[in-house]
Amino acid sequence: MKDFIQTLSADQTKELERQYALYANGVQEIIPADEFKQKIAKSLVEKKPLKVKLGLDPSAPDVHIGHTVVLQKLKQFQDNGHIVQLIIGDFTGRIGDPTGKSTVRKQLTDEEVRHNAQTYFEQFGKVLDMDKVELHYNADWLSKLNFEDVIQLAGKITVARLLERNDFTARISTGKPISLHEFFYPLMQGYDSVILESDLELGGTDQHFNVLMGRHLQEHYGKEKQVVMLLPLLEGLDGVEKMSKSKGNYIGINEDPNEMFGKMMSIPDELMPKYIELATDYTMDEKNKLKDDLQAGRLHPRDAKIRLGKTFVRMFHGEEAAEKAEQHFRAVFQKGAVPDEIPSMKWNGSGTAAVVDLLVGLRLLSSKSEARKMIQNGGVKLNGEKVSDIKLEIEIKDDTIVQVGKRKFVKLTL
Amino acid sequence: MKDFIQTLSADQTKELERQYALYANGVQEIIPADEFKQKIAKSLVEKKPLKVKLGLDPSAPDVHIGHTVVLQKLKQFQDNGHIVQLIIGDFTGRIGDPTGKSTVRKQLTDEEVRHNAQTYFEQFGKVLDMDKVELHYNADWLSKLNFEDVIQLAGKITVARLLERNDFTARISTGKPISLHEFFYPLMQGYDSVILESDLELGGTDQHFNVLMGRHLQEHYGKEKQVVMLLPLLEGLDGVEKMSKSKGNYIGINEDPNEMFGKMMSIPDELMPKYIELATDYTMDEKNKLKDDLQAGRLHPRDAKIRLGKTFVRMFHGEEAAEKAEQHFRAVFQKGAVPDEIPSMKWNGSGTAAVVDLLVGLRLLSSKSEARKMIQNGGVKLNGEKVSDIKLEIEIKDDTIVQVGKRKFVKLTL
Repeated sequence: MKDFIQTLSADQTKELERQYALYANGVQEIIPADEFKQKIAKSLVEKKPLKVKLGLDPSAPDVHIGHTVVLQKLKQFQDNGHIVQLIIGDFTGRIGDPTGKSTVRKQLTDEEVRHNAQTYFEQFGKVLDMDKVELHYNADWLSKLNFEDVIQLAGKITVARLLERNDFTARISTGKPISLHEFFYPLMQGYDSVILESDLELGGTDQHFNVLMGRHLQEHYGKEKQVVMLLPLLEGLDGVEKMSKSKGNYIGINEDPNEMFGKMMSIPDELMPKYIELATDYTMDEKNKLKDDLQAGRLHPRDAKIRLGKTFVRMFHGEEAAEKAEQHFRAVFQKGAVPDEIPSMKWNGSGTAAVVDLLVGLRLLSSKSEARKMIQNGGVKLNGEKVSDIKLEIEIKDDTIVQVGKRKFVKLTL
Repeated sequence: MKDFIQTLSADQTKELERQYALYANGVQEIIPADEFKQKIAKSLVEKKPLKVKLGLDPSAPDVHIGHTVVLQKLKQFQDNGHIVQLIIGDFTGRIGDPTGKSTVRKQLTDEEVRHNAQTYFEQFGKVLDMDKVELHYNADWLSKLNFEDVIQLAGKITVARLLERNDFTARISTGKPISLHEFFYPLMQGYDSVILESDLELGGTDQHFNVLMGRHLQEHYGKEKQVVMLLPLLEGLDGVEKMSKSKGNYIGINEDPNEMFGKMMSIPDELMPKYIELATDYTMDEKNKLKDDLQAGRLHPRDAKIRLGKTFVRMFHGEEAAEKAEQHFRAVFQKGAVPDEIPSMKWNGSGTAAVVDLLVGLRLLSSKSEARKMIQNGGVKLNGEKVSDIKLEIEIKDDTIVQVGKRKFVKLTL
């Protein structure tokens, strides 16, 4: 690659440094960083936007705050005039799992794929300007490859290299079978970069192998190699595991404002800097000031969380919803009061009931054992008074308020 | 599979036993033997011929006696009314080696493939009745597969299973790269059996993995599984290594009758039973009698070789050529005489010449060092007299007979 940096004017050099600092901020790794600078320099010299790629799995279109780490990064590129390429991996989705063993890779109909893609785009629209995004479906090119093309593709990678992927290594060493077709998922993703001539591909750190495949294949197909940008994985509400829907430790971007706000308040204090850094739409200066204030003790963690909660609601539901969610939170939790609006539920049983039956019957908890545990942990209140006896029977009266945990309230009607 | 053997009449049982004994004779392994018996029984009950498959590599169409081991076996099936399926692997030939590293897998044009196939068929016609053979080119179906079909195919085999193939195992353990596309060669061969619904596939023992792939894939595509028949590899003239053109230890079936006869006379005595068993068109009784006579000392090894030499010439050049080759051999070698017809060559040099220059100049030997070695080994004669001095200079006279080894004669003219 030509040395574009040497050819920049003073203003352009300044602009290069500004953009690089912005993009590199909060990123785990850029491979290789010097090529990335050259790519930015080239785009400044040639006045051509960079093509910044993100691949999407069409099987799980529920977007949560964890996903927005990469979306926020894409937004930064978009704000600076670069092109975001979103690729729906519909070819993979259409194939499913030929061995029929994987439930994750179940075969999707074209309709399901288009529906899921639409679901993605609606949610992504809360972060990105979707009018400026390039949308692609990789079946458009992958379905056109014939056996000979596939052999040419397979000829560009060794078996040893594929076996280096962490999950393959682990399965080989534990004797768990790898079906040969699985080797093609990273190749497909890489081939997308060949077709789209992407300059940069983004992914979580767990995508390390797959995104580098694009770089490898582009080189073997005689294209300019993409740079790879790996973003940290955001831990979920538990502060330990990667945020994911299946683990239940997530904040969905389509969730109800009060739920979103409340969940945000529940994260461990030590996660806050990471959430600020990775998931908000603050400027770098705002992020740094907020983190500094927190660390210096000028800002109470609870107040920082309120600010974050409000920010997330604003990002995905707008200013007004953010204000309301904050008011709701302050009313319920800070004053210890019950919220203004509590859903009413009709209780059809006899005049008296065991509290555990009540909790399960109202679907506030999913089993009697859970109900007993929640009572033992002091998490159940009747009309504001804590229940301590797991065998308690009560007389059902109109307007009895049942509270489970901090945020679930039900008003009984007869 | 239904138990067809149980349903056979007494005559059919006898016929089953006859055919099974014939086919199993001289075979290294039948996988599995009981299924093979059922297949024969089924063909007797349903009066339907078996489909017996042999795959051919279109890149090396020179056929030698080593190849005829499998051809003789196919001939037995053909003589009993079964169908021989010959498959030219032209799809593989058209692809070549996508990494460009293998000289063996160089890309062939369609024309080269058709030409090589024709060369095969002409030679095979010396053993098989080509009018009754089914000819196939696997590009007819393989070139029609798309990426989705290939993924379905790849989904039917695990990486671990492929790595079990001997040459792959060896390369992994020595760190030599395996390109991913190489995994597809056995899959292609196996898929041919799926398409052709072969009942049986023949191969040398070195084809163990590849022919079993057909059985595996047929099962996964819901077809009746083929039985696999592995034939011993015939050692070449050196008695040690597998006969092959590249090792120079072969008898080509298109070779000159005298050359073929002479080469046959040069094989080690202990190889004779194997050649008799595997490469001749004798009946089982004839084979057994010949081998018994040899072992009991009733037949001199030299006489047995003469008989074999004559047999091979007859098989590939006809009765008359066989008679002539025997006469030529007896005239030259048994009586120690020079043959009737010796090619004349003009010597353009001066009146005298060093013998080594003469030998190289006449192209009887390819280098001076070879010429010196041959003289030292007593392999060079001038007019019937052994030359012992490697520096000998002789006067060139008309009609001087130069002899190298046992079979090369040249008459000099001025």
